[in-house]
Amino acid sequence: MFNNIFKKVILTSIWFLLSVSTTASSSDVQSDMLVKKQRFEMDNFVTFGGKTIKHVAVGYESYGQLNANKDNVILVPHYFSANSHAAGKYHVDDTQAGYWDAIIGPDKAIDTNQYYVISVDSLVNLNANDPNTITTGPASIDPDTGKPYGMTFPVVTMRDFVNVQKAVLESLGIKKLHAVVGASMGSMQAIEWAASYPDWVPRMISIVGTGQIDAWGTSMLEQWAIPVRLDPNWKNGDYYQSTPPTEGLISALMFITQDALTPEFFNQMGDSPAVSQQAGQAAALQDINRSPAIVNWLRELAKKRVALMDANHLLYLVRANQLFVAGQQQNLASGLQNVKAKTLFLPASNDMLLMPYLAQDAYQILKEQGKETELLPLTGPLGHLNGVQLISQQADKIKQFLAE
Amino acid sequence: MFNNIFKKVILTSIWFLLSVSTTASSSDVQSDMLVKKQRFEMDNFVTFGGKTIKHVAVGYESYGQLNANKDNVILVPHYFSANSHAAGKYHVDDTQAGYWDAIIGPDKAIDTNQYYVISVDSLVNLNANDPNTITTGPASIDPDTGKPYGMTFPVVTMRDFVNVQKAVLESLGIKKLHAVVGASMGSMQAIEWAASYPDWVPRMISIVGTGQIDAWGTSMLEQWAIPVRLDPNWKNGDYYQSTPPTEGLISALMFITQDALTPEFFNQMGDSPAVSQQAGQAAALQDINRSPAIVNWLRELAKKRVALMDANHLLYLVRANQLFVAGQQQNLASGLQNVKAKTLFLPASNDMLLMPYLAQDAYQILKEQGKETELLPLTGPLGHLNGVQLISQQADKIKQFLAE
Repeated sequence: MFNNIFKKVILTSIWFLLSVSTTASSSDVQSDMLVKKQRFEMDNFVTFGGKTIKHVAVGYESYGQLNANKDNVILVPHYFSANSHAAGKYHVDDTQAGYWDAIIGPDKAIDTNQYYVISVDSLVNLNANDPNTITTGPASIDPDTGKPYGMTFPVVTMRDFVNVQKAVLESLGIKKLHAVVGASMGSMQAIEWAASYPDWVPRMISIVGTGQIDAWGTSMLEQWAIPVRLDPNWKNGDYYQSTPPTEGLISALMFITQDALTPEFFNQMGDSPAVSQQAGQAAALQDINRSPAIVNWLRELAKKRVALMDANHLLYLVRANQLFVAGQQQNLASGLQNVKAKTLFLPASNDMLLMPYLAQDAYQILKEQGKETELLPLTGPLGHLNGVQLISQQADKIKQFLAE
Repeated sequence: MFNNIFKKVILTSIWFLLSVSTTASSSDVQSDMLVKKQRFEMDNFVTFGGKTIKHVAVGYESYGQLNANKDNVILVPHYFSANSHAAGKYHVDDTQAGYWDAIIGPDKAIDTNQYYVISVDSLVNLNANDPNTITTGPASIDPDTGKPYGMTFPVVTMRDFVNVQKAVLESLGIKKLHAVVGASMGSMQAIEWAASYPDWVPRMISIVGTGQIDAWGTSMLEQWAIPVRLDPNWKNGDYYQSTPPTEGLISALMFITQDALTPEFFNQMGDSPAVSQQAGQAAALQDINRSPAIVNWLRELAKKRVALMDANHLLYLVRANQLFVAGQQQNLASGLQNVKAKTLFLPASNDMLLMPYLAQDAYQILKEQGKETELLPLTGPLGHLNGVQLISQQADKIKQFLAE
């Protein structure tokens, strides 16, 4: 159990994390590092599934300076609902910094005095309507038709996210990474990098991560897609000239929020006056169409985020996650065979979304293959979100791992 | 990890459990006890929320003989998706017996040579269209309008389920129970009995159960309601003259199935050829509208069950669960203050739905109140469903507890 002061801090920071899209941080020291979204474009991108996307545009951000040898690069792929805003602020008056500002910056765990840190907006990024996100996906215009792709956009995978990142890096003259570090879906891209381009990756850190999505995870991810597809406004993805499936998307975000947290956190929320179990019960007893307070809280949080997001992009992100197995071989062990990186896994002990057995499995395989690998737990009441909100607890370990 | 033979048995029995509505059992010894659904009716039932239902009809089943003193009665309230068919068969050629046939019958843990065992179909029972279920809920005809209630049906609670059961028992001349024993939602009714009618209940057994639904559980239950409400055929519950919201209900059943099982079970399923991760991946990579194999498996299971179920009834069941706190006081400790029963809690260690901390909390409160209480774990790969499918592992303990 966490004490009241800690609880208040956590509730406040979670509120920000969940309510202001991807620009949030638990860092008490607010960043004064100013950053700028940059744009990368390429033609004729061939997907892992063999389809061609005629034109790809993605955003990226960088923190720190690329050295003359271009060998001080740390790539930070982002998690499911985030974009490349991993640290810093766009304007001095931004209320929140990028999601990992606690560990990325001058003298921080990922030290921008030393490293050139870069993050790239994924394909099919969830925040398609966010002016600070540049992505290509079903909401983008298909050059062949002049209309949004909708469901005609090809299925993309973690390998495709990685290949776009590789193209960005190569456009900057970079030929090798110092490290790749990612949380959650970012960890999938990190280990995919290590498996697919082993000569690029001497160090890999997987935070609240996994080497693959298993049958359980595949079904759980499907729960996020289902409300979008049920929403009558979804119309098989062809809603760009009409009302978007906002209710379905809000429901999906409610599910994602719950899956990323824990009973401990929810029940502490339920103890606070605004969302107490008691507060909503009288109304819920009298009217089947009134919701309990905790449900209203979840829904209001989701509503704040939904305008910047695209429902079809969520479906494509779900699929990219469902298809994930590092290295894209018959099984995870084959996929990890070529990994050369030394690796560090930091699963959260109480993660309900990517449970710790997943990181443990990847770690175990790498160990059995005779590779240098390490696993340490993250603790805290936030489950999966310990990897974002409470990452500072392993700042020293991350710094040391990157230095070796 | 469980071995291959055990795995085969489990997969087969789970398949039955999930596919043939509520008439399933993991018992290898098939029951030859024949049972018959009986009907109970009452007028002017006043709900806990203060509304009057002008006419209530529910089904019930009994196993064994009521003795002359009418003091050998064991009440078995049922779980969320079940009805009162707890044991035996309707016809000798039924392929499956009631869900707890493994522990209810002659010489079994709940010995029908000794006890008169009775179970009652709940109000707003999910299986409203099942000819073997008799229930009153939103699909029932409102005598005032001659049309189905839909969303005008009053919200009902565990206390209402208990009060209907009490009316059934009183109609049979019963004034006291020997014990009340329930799994999951059945456990909620069991502890509600012990808290609300302490003089009736000398013994209570809670299996994969809880003393209350907390903020986490309230939100999780809402996930089951959301797909129904999103389905365009739901029409605010007024679908009885049109196409019912089948897709929404199928989705809800998919969620319930996953929540009641475990990663271990799902991933064993995912290893079997029919639903292997590999099998569906090629199609899922090529077409965003094709689902991974494990998702198709879940959907097919749900489809087999959905015809007998009513979507509005699911919404009312969800609400009854969301409102649950034993004794209906300010908090659980106050609610349990009046309990006189000795109690036994059997939570499943890997339960993902009603996690073991919930039974632990109720047990702890009763213990602190100086009451006789005991807690023992259920094991097995099935999580919440260990309490139905693998209950035999505690048969001796149950028998002994009831005898004392």
